[in-house]
Amino acid sequence: MAENTPIYLEEFMGMHPADLADRLQRLPVDQARHYLQELPVETASAALAEMEEELLPELLKDFPQAKLVPLLNLMPAEDTADVLGEIPEEDKERLLRNMDDAEAEAAKDLLQYPEDTAGGIMGDRFIMLRAHQTVIQAQRRIRQRHREQQPTDINYLFVTDKDEKLVGIVSIRDLIFSEDEVKISDIMDREVKYVRVTDDQEEVVRRFEKYHFLGLPVLDEEGKLVGVIRGDEVLSVAIDEQTEDMQKMVGLDGEERTLTPWPQSFKRRLPWLCVNLLTACLAGAVVGVFEGTIKEFVVLAVFLPIIASQGGNAGMQTVTVIVRDMALGELSPGDGRKALFKELLLGLLIGAIIGVIVGLVGALIAPKFGMAPETGGVLGLVVGAAMVLNLLAAALFGVLIPFALKFFRLDPALGSSILITTVTDVAGFFFLLALGKAILA
Amino acid sequence: MAENTPIYLEEFMGMHPADLADRLQRLPVDQARHYLQELPVETASAALAEMEEELLPELLKDFPQAKLVPLLNLMPAEDTADVLGEIPEEDKERLLRNMDDAEAEAAKDLLQYPEDTAGGIMGDRFIMLRAHQTVIQAQRRIRQRHREQQPTDINYLFVTDKDEKLVGIVSIRDLIFSEDEVKISDIMDREVKYVRVTDDQEEVVRRFEKYHFLGLPVLDEEGKLVGVIRGDEVLSVAIDEQTEDMQKMVGLDGEERTLTPWPQSFKRRLPWLCVNLLTACLAGAVVGVFEGTIKEFVVLAVFLPIIASQGGNAGMQTVTVIVRDMALGELSPGDGRKALFKELLLGLLIGAIIGVIVGLVGALIAPKFGMAPETGGVLGLVVGAAMVLNLLAAALFGVLIPFALKFFRLDPALGSSILITTVTDVAGFFFLLALGKAILA
Repeated sequence: MAENTPIYLEEFMGMHPADLADRLQRLPVDQARHYLQELPVETASAALAEMEEELLPELLKDFPQAKLVPLLNLMPAEDTADVLGEIPEEDKERLLRNMDDAEAEAAKDLLQYPEDTAGGIMGDRFIMLRAHQTVIQAQRRIRQRHREQQPTDINYLFVTDKDEKLVGIVSIRDLIFSEDEVKISDIMDREVKYVRVTDDQEEVVRRFEKYHFLGLPVLDEEGKLVGVIRGDEVLSVAIDEQTEDMQKMVGLDGEERTLTPWPQSFKRRLPWLCVNLLTACLAGAVVGVFEGTIKEFVVLAVFLPIIASQGGNAGMQTVTVIVRDMALGELSPGDGRKALFKELLLGLLIGAIIGVIVGLVGALIAPKFGMAPETGGVLGLVVGAAMVLNLLAAALFGVLIPFALKFFRLDPALGSSILITTVTDVAGFFFLLALGKAILA
Repeated sequence: MAENTPIYLEEFMGMHPADLADRLQRLPVDQARHYLQELPVETASAALAEMEEELLPELLKDFPQAKLVPLLNLMPAEDTADVLGEIPEEDKERLLRNMDDAEAEAAKDLLQYPEDTAGGIMGDRFIMLRAHQTVIQAQRRIRQRHREQQPTDINYLFVTDKDEKLVGIVSIRDLIFSEDEVKISDIMDREVKYVRVTDDQEEVVRRFEKYHFLGLPVLDEEGKLVGVIRGDEVLSVAIDEQTEDMQKMVGLDGEERTLTPWPQSFKRRLPWLCVNLLTACLAGAVVGVFEGTIKEFVVLAVFLPIIASQGGNAGMQTVTVIVRDMALGELSPGDGRKALFKELLLGLLIGAIIGVIVGLVGALIAPKFGMAPETGGVLGLVVGAAMVLNLLAAALFGVLIPFALKFFRLDPALGSSILITTVTDVAGFFFLLALGKAILA
């Protein structure tokens, strides 16, 4: 087939599949679809497996089934499952029925696990040995498996019993350096680290990062070996999860990219911006309540954004540190209380310093707003006190918001930036205007 | 030595080094230092290599040299270099002089590379073969190297010429499955992927993520093989780099953790909060300029936080998407313009929707602030128009700020959250108050 490939496609064929996928993604979708059909199936299959998942529904919508099935047959089962996971249920079923039986079965096995679990990111190409085999038998087995279905990584070989339950692990190193007739059971390591097929993928990332694994076996509930997770897959997951955290904090959906088509961005961003509108109205309402105070002391309006902005920024710092540590699994029970104490202390100290500065500014500019010097001093006190109180509020809610979201089994990052700035806007305005009303009036 | 270990340390000795490091980090530093001296050197060395780098200066300050040197001798050179990189220059020199020669040399070799480059994260334990060797000779070499200095990963073996320049790569797989007398040059792959020792570690992460490597050789300027980077190290780097991006956006230093001692957090957070104070004063100044307008139409003050908050949130969304894509290397030349166009379009659309809503709110609440119904309608127009304009400003600067930071060779994330909210505060206040003054008055 490659020999009949048009010459203008040759440049594509010399590229790494990841680079080719990049290139295709930047073309209009019709053109990308066209090229994928023209290219040799091996090239097209590898490139399709590398494409951004969010582009797949559009790309595959009008893809002729007869052209798509061979591409799916050629992919590693985990990639086939990822691609099929992105398209409508009925298309998926139809494609699976038309794929080769073995490939369809393998993909179906993987499709049963939720995307964001260990099962959703594992591969099915690994080598199983039996404990009673000898080293020479094992080597023969590896050779044979290697011809049948190229395993992605043979650094480790997995020893299972007759029910495919994992009982040990052998490194290729030990297999090479042992005598031919030694039994696998004599060289295998019985203390095997593993993950459960239902483990959350964030937990898998933590495990890999902490213990420096390059790969880990995945077991189902009965201890049966069902897959292997490779370190490179974990790297992709870690990057995606962190991007998601950053995005969710500011009310994005976690999967937006710079070049995401605008209608999709529009649909995804609008809801949280509407939430933000509602919460911002709360802050506006506080100002409305103190209408009279502002009319009397317009200078207070000058300090509204300053108090709110400092509180918002300090609160964001607290939230950011805690959301990250939660995601990385670095918080133990009891750390929440320590964090709260630390943040309140910081809020008090930083609030005192910044409070003194803005207090002085307040006292200095008061005369320009027609205040007597003594009243200016009082204004300075009001502004400084409001600043301290708002930074304490920022500290308190900066800790509480992620912990509360987690308590309600939501993502601790979810809209946390919007929530904390609402709190610091509302609290800051209230402290400043209420103190102003009580003391200045 | 292990036999003389006090019984109360036995629990520690059964732990994985990463877990032990975790435990020690949560103890008072004097106690952690004490345990590290009491534990068998193998255990203590492995745990020390796993500890958070930011805790090392404090921990090692009063560590008796005679006790520390054996721990450093036992670590892989890259870990020794990481530890030594965290302590004062003169202590470092003294320790290196007292270490075993080979270990000191290896650590010094690695210490010459900046921390955040490929050289700073590579290891030096790999196996070099020569092209003219036969498979059986190579296997003997592997066995010997394996006894001398356990290589961390023998999935791949590196073929070099007499000057240690990389000429090819052989997988352990091919080595096992080839006949004894076959030459390495006949089975090696000459198209080797690699990174340069001076490459930025972010670039290394991108390369690993895109091409799914589990490990990569590192070459110096002349093509000499100087190290190997493992996928698990890259995972740690990716996580650290992303945490840094998130933190830098809100004016944190990139390395803060929930349990970072408060004096350190204080020192690190204060500078950016002072920057924020200055920029917030700009927003306050805008309000001050329109003192008269606010006195006349206090209702405008109610909408100040609403306009500013929407702009800030929308701007943060734009900045977040762009900062991430820049860090992941997903933006090509020309993408900036596309992004700007898309964001402006979104700003216009979302601004129009949100603008109509707040405009209606404005018209509805105007009578409560003593305005005539007609004036209320005008107020609605003013508020709506200010919202649209501020969301356009958010879009424009949300794209410009990260690109400008990058242009000036700064981290695109650096303080970007503070910068964008300043812009949207100042611009939002100005649009609302200037329009209010021009149209309402």
